[in-house]
Amino acid sequence: MPKPIDFYFDFSSPYGYLAAQRIDEVAEEHGRKVVWRPFLLGAVFKTTGAQPLLNIPMKGDYARHDLERSARLFEIPFKLPERFPFMSVSACRAFYWLAGRSAGEAKDLALALYDRAFGEGLSIAEPGEVVEVAASLGHSADAVRAALQDADIKDRLRTEVDAAIGRGVFGSPFVIVDGEAFWGYDRLEDVGLWLETGGW
Amino acid sequence: MPKPIDFYFDFSSPYGYLAAQRIDEVAEEHGRKVVWRPFLLGAVFKTTGAQPLLNIPMKGDYARHDLERSARLFEIPFKLPERFPFMSVSACRAFYWLAGRSAGEAKDLALALYDRAFGEGLSIAEPGEVVEVAASLGHSADAVRAALQDADIKDRLRTEVDAAIGRGVFGSPFVIVDGEAFWGYDRLEDVGLWLETGGW
Repeated sequence: MPKPIDFYFDFSSPYGYLAAQRIDEVAEEHGRKVVWRPFLLGAVFKTTGAQPLLNIPMKGDYARHDLERSARLFEIPFKLPERFPFMSVSACRAFYWLAGRSAGEAKDLALALYDRAFGEGLSIAEPGEVVEVAASLGHSADAVRAALQDADIKDRLRTEVDAAIGRGVFGSPFVIVDGEAFWGYDRLEDVGLWLETGGW
Repeated sequence: MPKPIDFYFDFSSPYGYLAAQRIDEVAEEHGRKVVWRPFLLGAVFKTTGAQPLLNIPMKGDYARHDLERSARLFEIPFKLPERFPFMSVSACRAFYWLAGRSAGEAKDLALALYDRAFGEGLSIAEPGEVVEVAASLGHSADAVRAALQDADIKDRLRTEVDAAIGRGVFGSPFVIVDGEAFWGYDRLEDVGLWLETGGW
């Protein structure tokens, strides 16, 4: 059984959102599963000195245009939230809380959160908003609210972020296939080719 | 007759080198010509605050690996020069001097300079090295040497760099197709698709 591939993303990353709509399909075409691993890009930016993409002169304007264009190409709904970039700590914590019992449910939550943020352009920054999305999937609002403050969950997220940095993950989306790293939404085709050919 | 596409690159950009090996073919497949437009990324970095790619923690290591991998995929010889990044002013000036009489000869010079820099990993930073490459293509060493100090050529380069920035060019390679901008070597496939479909 071939190993799953690792899909790293930040909930505040619009290119991560686009990749999330396609990564499972790219992997499944080659008989692979995907481990979804949200992390906090802000922690990495402290190391790399990077700035949030859309705040950068020239590059920000390009990215706004490119995001719309990239979404259209695969007919993915796309709307940038008014408040952007935003804090994604609560979204991450809710994810890892659910991941502790079901990777599938955690992924469904990730997709629902991403859909609210970049499909509808609404906020997922506040704990209450994350609770609302989780509740809409049938999870207990009280349980989610408690999880967002749980020390073990906070630890789990810190561990995940440290592990991501340890593996050289510096952007979102970021995919690791059998030890081979691919950064950026525009490298999904290369991920597919690597899976198909076993590397070159 | 459809308009040519614009290919912007910095002679010090390894991804620009990779794109230079393929851009004409991508365009020709769709009946287009390419206008080669070297510029100075350093001037743009003053606006965007960007750092040379390979100097960035984490991202630099990734890029070193990705450059080798990207080159292998299309069987492009690749060797990073020891001194990197390097000044590309002389290379640019020699290019625009030749472009004044023959776009084809200017392109041949660009390919020869790129080949020396990233195919063989040798320096093209010094005026004398640029003169040597131009002379190897049959140009008069004295004429090239004079051109590198020519006030009109210096002006021409400044104008080209300002025009590039005015068009929103902030990275290398950068391609503009009928007003549509594509940044990065990993977007050459999108350039081809845009040419094929007329846009989406």
